[in-house]
This record gives sequence, C-alpha cells and structure tokens, in this order.
Amino acid sequence: MENFTATYTDQYQLAMAQVYFNKGHKEHMAVFDYFFRELPFNGGYAIFSGLEELLEIIAGLRFSKEDIQFLKRQGFEDDFLEYLENFKFTGNIYSCKEGDVIFATRPILQIESNIIEAQIVETLLLNLLNFQTLIATKASRIRLVAGDCGLLDFGLRRAQATGGYFATRAAIIGGFDGTSNVVAGRDYDIPVSGTMAHSFVQSYDDELEAFRDFAKGRPEKCVLLVDTYNTLKSGIPNAITVAKEMEKRGDKLLAIRLDSGDLSYLAKESRRLLDEAGLDYVKIAASNQLDEFVIKSLLEQQAPIDIFGVGTNLVTGNPDAALDGVYKLAWSNGKPRIKISESISKVTLPHKKQVFRIKDKTGKCIGADAIGLASQNRIEEMFHPYEPYKSMKLDEFEQEPLLKPVMLNGKVVDKKRSLKEITEYSFKRLSELPIEYKRFNNPHIYKIGISKELREERDKLIRKFKNTF
Amino acid sequence: MENFTATYTDQYQLAMAQVYFNKGHKEHMAVFDYFFRELPFNGGYAIFSGLEELLEIIAGLRFSKEDIQFLKRQGFEDDFLEYLENFKFTGNIYSCKEGDVIFATRPILQIESNIIEAQIVETLLLNLLNFQTLIATKASRIRLVAGDCGLLDFGLRRAQATGGYFATRAAIIGGFDGTSNVVAGRDYDIPVSGTMAHSFVQSYDDELEAFRDFAKGRPEKCVLLVDTYNTLKSGIPNAITVAKEMEKRGDKLLAIRLDSGDLSYLAKESRRLLDEAGLDYVKIAASNQLDEFVIKSLLEQQAPIDIFGVGTNLVTGNPDAALDGVYKLAWSNGKPRIKISESISKVTLPHKKQVFRIKDKTGKCIGADAIGLASQNRIEEMFHPYEPYKSMKLDEFEQEPLLKPVMLNGKVVDKKRSLKEITEYSFKRLSELPIEYKRFNNPHIYKIGISKELREERDKLIRKFKNTF
Repeated sequence: MENFTATYTDQYQLAMAQVYFNKGHKEHMAVFDYFFRELPFNGGYAIFSGLEELLEIIAGLRFSKEDIQFLKRQGFEDDFLEYLENFKFTGNIYSCKEGDVIFATRPILQIESNIIEAQIVETLLLNLLNFQTLIATKASRIRLVAGDCGLLDFGLRRAQATGGYFATRAAIIGGFDGTSNVVAGRDYDIPVSGTMAHSFVQSYDDELEAFRDFAKGRPEKCVLLVDTYNTLKSGIPNAITVAKEMEKRGDKLLAIRLDSGDLSYLAKESRRLLDEAGLDYVKIAASNQLDEFVIKSLLEQQAPIDIFGVGTNLVTGNPDAALDGVYKLAWSNGKPRIKISESISKVTLPHKKQVFRIKDKTGKCIGADAIGLASQNRIEEMFHPYEPYKSMKLDEFEQEPLLKPVMLNGKVVDKKRSLKEITEYSFKRLSELPIEYKRFNNPHIYKIGISKELREERDKLIRKFKNTF
Repeated sequence: MENFTATYTDQYQLAMAQVYFNKGHKEHMAVFDYFFRELPFNGGYAIFSGLEELLEIIAGLRFSKEDIQFLKRQGFEDDFLEYLENFKFTGNIYSCKEGDVIFATRPILQIESNIIEAQIVETLLLNLLNFQTLIATKASRIRLVAGDCGLLDFGLRRAQATGGYFATRAAIIGGFDGTSNVVAGRDYDIPVSGTMAHSFVQSYDDELEAFRDFAKGRPEKCVLLVDTYNTLKSGIPNAITVAKEMEKRGDKLLAIRLDSGDLSYLAKESRRLLDEAGLDYVKIAASNQLDEFVIKSLLEQQAPIDIFGVGTNLVTGNPDAALDGVYKLAWSNGKPRIKISESISKVTLPHKKQVFRIKDKTGKCIGADAIGLASQNRIEEMFHPYEPYKSMKLDEFEQEPLLKPVMLNGKVVDKKRSLKEITEYSFKRLSELPIEYKRFNNPHIYKIGISKELREERDKLIRKFKNTF
C-alpha cells in the first residue's frame, strides 16, 4: 500500500551525509548493528519481524523529484543533490531470518555499506523493524495462551494510523489466523474475516429481522453479534431462531459474537442456550479489550470461547509504546568503532560480528547466543559482556551462525517467502525454545555472551578512550 | 505520502454493505456520530486533529481494480462489486473545526449519508482521527509545560511504522515547532531540523575533528552532539573550541545537544562552561525519553535547556495506546436509533444533533458543551446525561454551535487551511479554556449536558427496548 521514498528519514542523516560527501568520505565503508536493549513486555523472547518487506523497500529506495526539490529548498548543495538523485542502496545486509526468536543486546541485523547509504536507510529500518517486532512478539504471546483457539486481528480502527497495516502483517507472523483489515489481506494474502457491527442491528426495527437478513446475505460465513440490546434475553434467542431457520435451508450458523459484558459468564450461558437448542456446532467469538492476560484468564475460567478478536492491545503493542531498537556504528573507514557510555551496559560492541545460537548435540537450545567477530567460525568460550568473572565453555556445543547475507550489493539474496512460510519458521524456532523463556512472570533469562577476541577488541577501545579523557 | 484505497476498512463493513445492497437498503440515509468516551492521558481536554486530511482522503476514496479483484476472490457478488467500482462518498459531514478543544461523550463529527457509504468510511475515519487526536493532545500537553522553549519531534524511528508520518502532522497542530521527519516536512510544509548522530562522531578518530568538519559543513545550522564519549570532559570543551573557530570565520554555533545522563545537571554545567567561554548565545538542546512530566521537572529544576527533542512518548502517545473513539448509529431509514447497554453511560444518543459551546456574555467558556437535536438553535436548559436531578439553565449564556458542514454531497466545503492556521486556531481555542481544565492532576471536569428534547427522545427509545426484552 505504501510508497516509500528516501526522505522517509531523519533530517540529521542528510545533514551528516552532506558533510561526508563534501569531505570525500562517501566511499568510507561502515558497519552498523541493529539491536535492542530490552525485551518487550518484560517477556523472555521476541519474534523478529519486518525484514523481508524492509529489504524490498530498501532495494527500491530512491529520492523522488519532489524530494530533491524539497531538499534544495532546505539548503542542500547542488553536487550533493545530484548524488542523491542517483542514490540507491548498494551495500550488504546480514541478518537473522524473519520470524526467528531473538533476544536483547545482540546484533539482529548488520548493515555493511558506504557510510552515506547506511545513514540514509537507518530511520526507515528502525521504524519498520522496531514496530513489526513489537507486534509479532505481542501476537506470539497471545498465541501462546490461546492454544488452538482462532485469533483474529480487529485493530485497524484503533491502530496508530497506517501503522495498522504493518501491525496486521506482524500479527500473522506472531501466530494470528486472520484479520478484519481488508487492504492488508489483499496485499499480504492473509485470510480476511468480518462479522457485523451494532449499527447493522440498530438500523433495523428489530434484531430478529436484522439477523435474518444477514444470515440470508452471508449463508456461509454468518456470525451474529448478539449484544446490541440484551445478550441473553434477546441476542442469543434471536440467533437461535435464525440458526434453526438456516438449518431448514441447509445452511449453518458459523458463530455468535460477544462484544461487551462479562465474557466468561456470557460465553457459558450462551453455550448452554445454544447447546440446549441443538446448536453445538455454532462457535462463540469474543472481542472487547482483549490481550494475553484477559484471554489467559478467560480460558482458565473455562469460558467456552472458540475465537478471539483482538484489537487495540495487539496492534499498538500495549502497554509498550515501542521496541527500543537502536542502530550503532561498529566499524568505519577501516577501523573498529565504539560508543562509550557512563553505563558499561550501554557501551557498544565494535567490529563486524557473527552471532551463534548455542545448542546441545541433540539440537536443543541451551538458552544462549554468543557474539564473536565475523571472522570466527566457532567460539571456544563465551564471556558475560560486562561481569568479568562469568564465562562458559562452548567447545562441546553446536553453534548455529545466525547472521546470514540477505542483501548483497543492494540486491535481495533469497526469494521472498510467503507470510505462511515465515510463520511456520517462527513456530518451529519458538518450539525449540524451552518453556521457561516463554512464561509471562519473571521468565528465565536467556544468556548473551561475547567471545574472548571480541571482548579484547572492545576493551582495547574502551582503554583508548578512557585514556584520552 | 499515502495512497489510501477504499479497502482500507474492516471486512465487516463490506459484509454489511453487501446485505444492505441486496436488500435494497442502499439508499437508506443514516447518521453516525464520532465521539470518544474518555479523555486521553487522564487529562482535562483533547485537541481535535486529522480532520482536513481525512476529508481530502474521503473525497478521493475509490476501490481500485486490485481491490475489486480481491473482493471477487473473497466471494462478493458481481452486482455489488459493480456498485463498488463506481463507489464514491456522496454524503455530508458536520464537524468541529480541526484544532478545536474537544471533550469526551459528545459528538465531534457527524456523518450523514447512505448507510453503505457511511459504513465503508468508518474504519478509515476512526483510524485517522483517533490517532491524530491522541498525538495532538499529547503535543499540546508538552507545549503547555515547555512555555517558549523549542519543541522538536524526533520520533520517526520509534513510531508505529508509517503512523509516524501522521504523528508529525498532529504534533505540529498540538504546538510543536518542527520535526526531524523529512517526508512529513516535505508534504506538510513543516520546519525540518537535524543535528548529528553519535555515529558521526564515532566515524572519526577524534571528536574534535568530527565537530570541526560538521561545523564547516553546516555553518548556519550547526548543532553538536556532545555525549559520545564524555559530555563535560570532552564534548563541551571540544564544542567550545569549535565555536571559537566558527566565530573567527564569522559563523555562530547554534546549539549543543545532550542525549544521555542527568539532563538537569549536565545542562547547568554545560551552560556554565559555555558562558565562561563567552558563548552565551549557544543554545542547549536535550533529548532522551522526554515527555511532559520530565520536561516539567527539568524546568522546575531550572535546567537551562532551550530546545527539547521528543521522540517515542510523543509519536506513540505513551502511555495511552489509543484514543477510544467510536462511531455510533444515531439515525437510519427515517428513524432515530439507539444502542442500549447494561451501563447507562454507554447508551448512545439518537437523532442528528448539534453541540453548543456555552460561553458567558464576555465570550469566556464556562466549561460546558450542551448537546441538542439538530433542529434546535439554542438550548434553554441542559441536563446531566444520566443523573436525573442535575441540570443547568442556559438562557443567559452565549451558545456557539460547534458542528458545521465540512463536506456536502461528497465535496469538501472549506478551503484547506495550512497547518500553521490550524495550529493558531487551536492555540486560540485552548486559550479560551480556563486553566483548571489544563492541569495534569485531577483536572476540573468539563460538563457535557443534553437538552430536554434530546433526553426525551432518548428515554422514549430506552423504554421501547426495555419493554421488548
């Protein structure tokens, strides 16, 4: 749906780029790491989302005529604007696969390109990956508690404007079954579903007549919303009448939907009434301010709900406003680079790197990723990034390299996978993660270690800057 | 930037539309109200935002070929698809002006059109108005505490994907001065500003050299980021050196930027060092997880900060995930319509309506809006919507009607205002609101009343449905 243009960026990227351009630094090669510092939702893992779409957008990213005219008015210089007119991203990207289970403080993606190109794509990359990863993670948490129940994204009306479009894509990767969002369904080949609004019932003089018309118009996908006037005294009895009429025509009512009141109580009473009427095949769908905690509670109360429609809390990642993903320089102009901070935990890791997932001989995750230099094929021993006495021997473990080339010289390497393929991959990877990392309260902490070689390189740079100041 | 298409909607809108179409209800006229039930941020007011853009989008909204093909695959019928191919919105919209100060539980906007058109635009309308109103309100709160300080939107990288584009527009309406978001600046004619990232400093072997190059490349808009290594021991001394060199060339350093650490302490120390060097004209900009509460605290501590860059908390409306705006049927097919709820406060108001802002003879807001039937020119007495013994005589007050036609027969009525005009209007309206409604803690509650005539109409419908069940 979107037309991304290269001014989808922060002004400072262009301000810096102008200076690099003038200084002849435009061929300086740089490596940037994308990572985040804290897992969303106080959870134990995140689901990486947004990559394949991002690669496609970066591959086609250009400055339009309108962009160039605007930048000229902003005072950028003509020779630099001429460079931007011919801009395209020509670098390399190494990344985890979209859908993988990821953790805080270790590179998820690395960009290797000339420094101007790397800066210009930064904002776009952060914007799309931070948000989709947040939502895919939220969706995954909801899927974890919902078991085999149907999960539908109902969030577009409460989404942060067009962010809802990307939220729907990410929700599917996290494990949702479908969406109400038609344009996202169209573009991403996602199952689209829809029931009826209260306004439909209100627009008739009585509820039964409204249900009858709807059932005739949607014989195969009929879901009746039963709470416009009174769920148990009016909505359910009318739905039963219509379901019986549908049976006579050879049709079947698919479901009723509850959208207010005590969902546990109403679901149980509705189930009882439907079953007593011989309508045990009619499903119960529920919506109204749901999230992973409400759904968990409803199912613990054995509320007989088959399908959950989740809106605001899914598509906005409530209560988290954003994933705090950052993009930090690790290498430029032939040298490793570091950012020092008052807090050692915020000091960045220099050099182009590789990340290994540590597994036992049977292929089971032991709960650790180890970061080494890109030149390392294996890591002998991993060290806690800033607690000097903690380390762990890795020689007996399998080590799966996670950062693989996904873009080379500006061209996407792999064939685009369907959302279904990404989702299946994500489920597989999540199934390899022990359950302790998936619980909501105080999940087990996944270990992130660094190799001896990387630690030495980092500490050398820390000493260099500490000596200077 | 966006290409909106008519499938930017929830599937149920189309499911209902198909039924209306088949039943020959497509010419039934309907009135829907847009309102929200709770003010965002536990605040005392909201700033209405998103309208003028929404009108432009609605006026041009069509189903594309791709949309129609997709809907055909979804099983919609051919004669209905033919209708959608020729779809355009041909109805009327009555609304508050964008930028106005608005409150919960009373209509902000009313749509009057055939019921199919009204349903199809619902999701888009909620999506754009809910979000922009949330962000404009957040921005307004930040402006209230920031006084004359500069306020810049730095949020694109942490925005909910392309929602950031609309967030920037809304932030300006709420009172921000500029943005880092280049494409929003381009499209909405917003001042764009940018400084430098840590990566710029890191990409050099030393900070001083990086500052020098940047100052030469940006002599008129030079802002130096001083916390890459050590703010007070390195960043500020280097910035002073460069500022002095700039003076010799006839240039002036615009500002330094703090992005980590204790902003109050660092701003004071930085100010002292700059002043001691005779650089009292160099401004101090600060960023890093700011919101209205942090800025209020910094200014109470007399932190000498001139410009605040606000990111995540602005563009996501943190801690609110969304404004709970809804769209409720008030009239259709010649009759008033109501939605009953277990809670009287959630019962909707039937009929096409007008909303009056109540003012004293001098034009000062008394803190009340009164809702009447659209046929009423004045309201004699307003009643609490559901507490029967509360009422207030209004005959001595000025009554300003707030809902004015903004779209008639699908055509936008007024010339589009610039963002600057909308912002100025918003400031003016906010200045008419007494300060008690603007405080953050337990703001004074703005009264919403209904006319006797509207109350009677509502209660008649409540009785009718209560008798039925």
